[in-house]
Amino acid sequence: ASSLPRTRPRFEDTAWNQGLLKESGVYWKHFVKIMEFPSHAVFLAVLQTAFLVLFALFVRYHPNADSRYASPTSAMRELIKERGENEADPMEHALLYPMFQDVHVMIFLGIGFLLTFLKRYGFSSVGYNLMIGVVSMEWALLVTGFFHMHEHHGTIPVNLAGLLAAEFSAATVLISFCVVLGKTTPNQLLVMAMLEIPIYITNEYIGRSYIGAVDIGDGMFIHLFAAMFGLAVSFVLQRPDQETVKLGSTKTSDLFAMVGSIFLWLFWPSFNAAFAVGAAQHRTIINTYVSLTGCTVTTFFTSAFVHPNRKFDMVHIANASLAGGVVMGSIGDMMVQPAGALGAGCAAGLICSLGFTYITPWMHSKLRIHDICGVFNLHGMPGLLTGLLSVLLAGIASEEGYGYSLYSIFPLRAPHNGTEHLEEIQAVMNVQASEGRSALQQAGAQAAALLMCIVVPTVGGLVTGLVMRSPAINILTADEFYDDQKYWRMEEEQVGDSSGTTK
Amino acid sequence: ASSLPRTRPRFEDTAWNQGLLKESGVYWKHFVKIMEFPSHAVFLAVLQTAFLVLFALFVRYHPNADSRYASPTSAMRELIKERGENEADPMEHALLYPMFQDVHVMIFLGIGFLLTFLKRYGFSSVGYNLMIGVVSMEWALLVTGFFHMHEHHGTIPVNLAGLLAAEFSAATVLISFCVVLGKTTPNQLLVMAMLEIPIYITNEYIGRSYIGAVDIGDGMFIHLFAAMFGLAVSFVLQRPDQETVKLGSTKTSDLFAMVGSIFLWLFWPSFNAAFAVGAAQHRTIINTYVSLTGCTVTTFFTSAFVHPNRKFDMVHIANASLAGGVVMGSIGDMMVQPAGALGAGCAAGLICSLGFTYITPWMHSKLRIHDICGVFNLHGMPGLLTGLLSVLLAGIASEEGYGYSLYSIFPLRAPHNGTEHLEEIQAVMNVQASEGRSALQQAGAQAAALLMCIVVPTVGGLVTGLVMRSPAINILTADEFYDDQKYWRMEEEQVGDSSGTTK
Amino acid sequence: ASSLPRTRPRFEDTAWNQGLLKESGVYWKHFVKIMEFPSHAVFLAVLQTAFLVLFALFVRYHPNADSRYASPTSAMRELIKERGENEADPMEHALLYPMFQDVHVMIFLGIGFLLTFLKRYGFSSVGYNLMIGVVSMEWALLVTGFFHMHEHHGTIPVNLAGLLAAEFSAATVLISFCVVLGKTTPNQLLVMAMLEIPIYITNEYIGRSYIGAVDIGDGMFIHLFAAMFGLAVSFVLQRPDQETVKLGSTKTSDLFAMVGSIFLWLFWPSFNAAFAVGAAQHRTIINTYVSLTGCTVTTFFTSAFVHPNRKFDMVHIANASLAGGVVMGSIGDMMVQPAGALGAGCAAGLICSLGFTYITPWMHSKLRIHDICGVFNLHGMPGLLTGLLSVLLAGIASEEGYGYSLYSIFPLRAPHNGTEHLEEIQAVMNVQASEGRSALQQAGAQAAALLMCIVVPTVGGLVTGLVMRSPAINILTADEFYDDQKYWRMEEEQVGDSSGTTK
Repeated sequence: ASSLPRTRPRFEDTAWNQGLLKESGVYWKHFVKIMEFPSHAVFLAVLQTAFLVLFALFVRYHPNADSRYASPTSAMRELIKERGENEADPMEHALLYPMFQDVHVMIFLGIGFLLTFLKRYGFSSVGYNLMIGVVSMEWALLVTGFFHMHEHHGTIPVNLAGLLAAEFSAATVLISFCVVLGKTTPNQLLVMAMLEIPIYITNEYIGRSYIGAVDIGDGMFIHLFAAMFGLAVSFVLQRPDQETVKLGSTKTSDLFAMVGSIFLWLFWPSFNAAFAVGAAQHRTIINTYVSLTGCTVTTFFTSAFVHPNRKFDMVHIANASLAGGVVMGSIGDMMVQPAGALGAGCAAGLICSLGFTYITPWMHSKLRIHDICGVFNLHGMPGLLTGLLSVLLAGIASEEGYGYSLYSIFPLRAPHNGTEHLEEIQAVMNVQASEGRSALQQAGAQAAALLMCIVVPTVGGLVTGLVMRSPAINILTADEFYDDQKYWRMEEEQVGDSSGTTK
Repeated sequence: ASSLPRTRPRFEDTAWNQGLLKESGVYWKHFVKIMEFPSHAVFLAVLQTAFLVLFALFVRYHPNADSRYASPTSAMRELIKERGENEADPMEHALLYPMFQDVHVMIFLGIGFLLTFLKRYGFSSVGYNLMIGVVSMEWALLVTGFFHMHEHHGTIPVNLAGLLAAEFSAATVLISFCVVLGKTTPNQLLVMAMLEIPIYITNEYIGRSYIGAVDIGDGMFIHLFAAMFGLAVSFVLQRPDQETVKLGSTKTSDLFAMVGSIFLWLFWPSFNAAFAVGAAQHRTIINTYVSLTGCTVTTFFTSAFVHPNRKFDMVHIANASLAGGVVMGSIGDMMVQPAGALGAGCAAGLICSLGFTYITPWMHSKLRIHDICGVFNLHGMPGLLTGLLSVLLAGIASEEGYGYSLYSIFPLRAPHNGTEHLEEIQAVMNVQASEGRSALQQAGAQAAALLMCIVVPTVGGLVTGLVMRSPAINILTADEFYDDQKYWRMEEEQVGDSSGTTK
Repeated sequence: ASSLPRTRPRFEDTAWNQGLLKESGVYWKHFVKIMEFPSHAVFLAVLQTAFLVLFALFVRYHPNADSRYASPTSAMRELIKERGENEADPMEHALLYPMFQDVHVMIFLGIGFLLTFLKRYGFSSVGYNLMIGVVSMEWALLVTGFFHMHEHHGTIPVNLAGLLAAEFSAATVLISFCVVLGKTTPNQLLVMAMLEIPIYITNEYIGRSYIGAVDIGDGMFIHLFAAMFGLAVSFVLQRPDQETVKLGSTKTSDLFAMVGSIFLWLFWPSFNAAFAVGAAQHRTIINTYVSLTGCTVTTFFTSAFVHPNRKFDMVHIANASLAGGVVMGSIGDMMVQPAGALGAGCAAGLICSLGFTYITPWMHSKLRIHDICGVFNLHGMPGLLTGLLSVLLAGIASEEGYGYSLYSIFPLRAPHNGTEHLEEIQAVMNVQASEGRSALQQAGAQAAALLMCIVVPTVGGLVTGLVMRSPAINILTADEFYDDQKYWRMEEEQVGDSSGTTK
């Protein structure tokens, strides 16, 4: 394992790629040569330049962050009145900011370090997580903005809540990234980010605005979606010659992974509760927290039960303990009572731990889907479970169980305009008239969104995987898998395991 | 050091255990066999199931997290009036949450990583800390609730403040855990948690509700208590055949410990101030912060002074720097002025550093108490010091020194109902009538609580230690001490020091 | 490399020092002998004692943290009225605290761990960072207080905002510390802290109070200042015999550095926005966040472009990604729009990454300034850039662009007392009369401050470097560079690289 600069092997160098090239025909050969030089650096530079231009054209401060709105001159005041805009709230960010920072830590430190468990891939794990995260964030800010530009005089207003939504989008891409960790080039990851973001945002937009599904902590729209998307990509990218020698971890790499895991575990209540309000936010914090404790205990005993010598497995602890956060994703603000949250957390810990032991190997050998981080166990199944629970809970939700908050939790259940019932509610709290959905109708909406969060990412992931596999994009040879060496500068002594010095 | 699955040695296999068995007689032999199989996995599963049942029976959302109270229907409004309940405050959690998260980080990341200094015990340190922490938290939520169920119509209401109190309870068990780190099985730790929690909660309940002691950051009720409890357990568990080869640290393990230590150091002001209010909270933050700075400088120079070559000792820095937080535990909200806090911090750093050099070895050789993390230095002595200071400061506290806040800091000093003095106070601030204690009486209460926080955990710890030593619970053989290998799955190459690959 | 206690080499033992002694003459010899024994432990003890005395004499709780002000007795109320003091705000700290904690994490964990990249210097990096940080903080609290004592009846009032300002001062010293990392003794660092703090505070005081420059996130007063100061010190301390064998990093040490780097990256918005208010705070968060994303992407592609094999360099990622925070230092609250922030971030990432590749080696070989952490790239150039941008932006700032907030962003632009314009403004927001500066005048003030932030630290750093080089203070021999061994207790097996066990 020498670290001396060596010529990057051309795409045609391996047998597998040659086969792929033959399939694709001579047409590609020319394109390949063009793409080979510029590679990841050019790709990133072009993306950032394009983002900069789009920002200059469209992105503006939200009035709440714009001094002209906070302390308007008389000319400005008239302009505001003319436009029919609201007065600015200069403290909008104050209460959101601590939760925003928690989520920020989760995305960039939490996920980044959780992935450092691979002994020879620590730089790539933290580094690509950061790179893909910021690219996704900028891109998501723009794509989301395009959906809403007509409401904002052709501009994309940005405030702290908008940045938080962009972070959530980044999380989606990063969860999918976990599935193919170690097996992709920067270019492939960038392609994935650029394609997944619009699919994710469109899916969520339809789910929320047209279907009217609710999903406070994005159990379906992020976790289930990202897992299915990643699995579909992994299915397309699967190759017969994957080696596994470098797939292990060391004690040091596992401890770094625990730094990431514990921050995810600690701050998950903020992830689920950031967009909730008042008592519902308080309840989401409690539900997520309680669910995580039950999930953690269950993970410990399940992990020991399935091991022949009753030993705990750090892979289970670092991952399955988090399933309690995912399983509150779609139902965190619902009235499940602490026992409900605890029970759901236990169930999530159980299926997630069992998934690592039984389902992941089965998927690899039978479905030829290699899910290196067990994303299906941590995000897929608990995401499915929280979606199903949201169908159930929406179907039995009533005024008796929620008070008039029923109509802030499920806004489309608010009565039609002009009804007496609406007036009664509005006497107690601020609720907008809506379509007066029944509980059953809302349950149907939840079910439709759930289905969509399986189908859309599966199709989207398959297509994205095909693009990522295209010979126009540089890919790794099998011996470059799970190894920092190809894309990261290393001193001679750094080559090898993450313990630092041994080779 | 092979990691191949090997048969777990039966309890009778070591000489020491054989002696113990002989003492205990044949009666145990049968019971041992029963307990050997189910072991930790069954124990955890049974506990979690029991908790789930108890949660379902008793635990409910606090009105502040319950939508029915935040936006009550007219039926609900009547029920609330009937029950004589207060209106819900939907923002109760908002200002507490950032401090709650700081404490959350301290408990699970801070303590967990502080303990990773042992070179072969990193998985156990972080893992058991998490496991024992969540079990303690769930159990504490229930036990605390039982004490107050009569005030809440037979239910246990849970809100963010309740979760925070449960985290504090978990901290108590985890501090005691530090004393016996590396020398216990999961079952022993679970037994300790199950017994220590009710003793801790009862002790604090008596101290606060009956004796009327104040202890804003739990310097006595947590730190002193937990240290004494752990030492008593360690005294009972001490064995002649402890080996020490694995007791060292590596540079990597010490740096992981510093991640934990620094987070504890950074967030300690939140630990002390979370339950304080208004200016008293502000003051507690300042006092704790200033105390920690003085303590840290003192730790540095004391550490260098006691080393023959004037070198700093990372064990001192990682631990003794924190004593400044403990020493503000009982007096953080009192009017000690910054210089008082600084002086107390310096004193704490001094005794704690000296403790590591002189007292810990002495306790080990003379009292046969092995205090592996120096808990007596970090929590015991500074806890005692802050308790003594609270006696002194309570004894000299006056309206002149505190304004009318005297009666929110020391609530039992508030005048009797109907007195003119009370009316005068209530014109300025919201204070409830109380027993009109004198400064001296309050000092007496502090002294009584201090005494209780030495006696109760000592007795409780001795009894708990005896139960933990019972042959019915699997214990470790001496060569299994300080080693992840017995209870954690490891790949061949992970066995050994935390640097990862070398043996 | 044995860790057995060995006699500390006397100052005269190395050839280089002998030359220095000869230069300095016999006069020093006597003093050297005196200074040799007490060394760092005595220095620290003396400092802490002096601080304690000064605290006792001058430092008092700010009224907002003082119970007597929060709930004054009638006697106290009269005293307050007599003194003409304001009423206390018991919630002053509540909204600041989460941002304060973010900055706290940046200073002590962020910088501390960012510096652990050196493979044999991890203890010193984290340890000295903590030691110098707290000493600087205490000293800054006092020095700042001395400047304002006349406004506070001869006392130094301390509140959370004051602690935050002290943390900022500590950051200044720690940034300068980064330049000379690994090449200084504790005594040299303490001397640097004691001298740099008053120079820094005086410089900022003149810049803000007399010149009237604005600098919301201290891009000039901290980042540029600290970089220039550190470089000047490094220039004076440069020696011909620096060895570089120990200058490398390992994978483990680089991952620890990434823990620090990512926390700096995550919490930088708090650093810039902590002292801003309302919409300006919201905007500073957005600007800093957006700037950091652009900077990060740019760092990735620049890093790959300048590497012969297009590899990413972890040194660039860990450092240059942060330049986006620095470049918003002086302009974070200005109306640059998100695209402006993004563009500035990209520019900062570009010059910083190129700096690591081209400028740092050039400075070392041509100017004989060894900038081990590339502080000039991360703090110097982006600090200069943000200063220049602040000149430009101040020069074009208008009521049209800022609304009446113009006068809270640039307070000296507020109209003179009694003018009609002032009344108009005061009808909308709370603004104090001032000197009615023009945009150009304010731009001039920014330029003057920028110049001062280059000249003052250069001169101050040269003088400080000379004092640090004085033979009265113990210095390192070349083979003691970049090595924990000289000042940190280590077990035999810990000597060597931070991977823990190899030698």
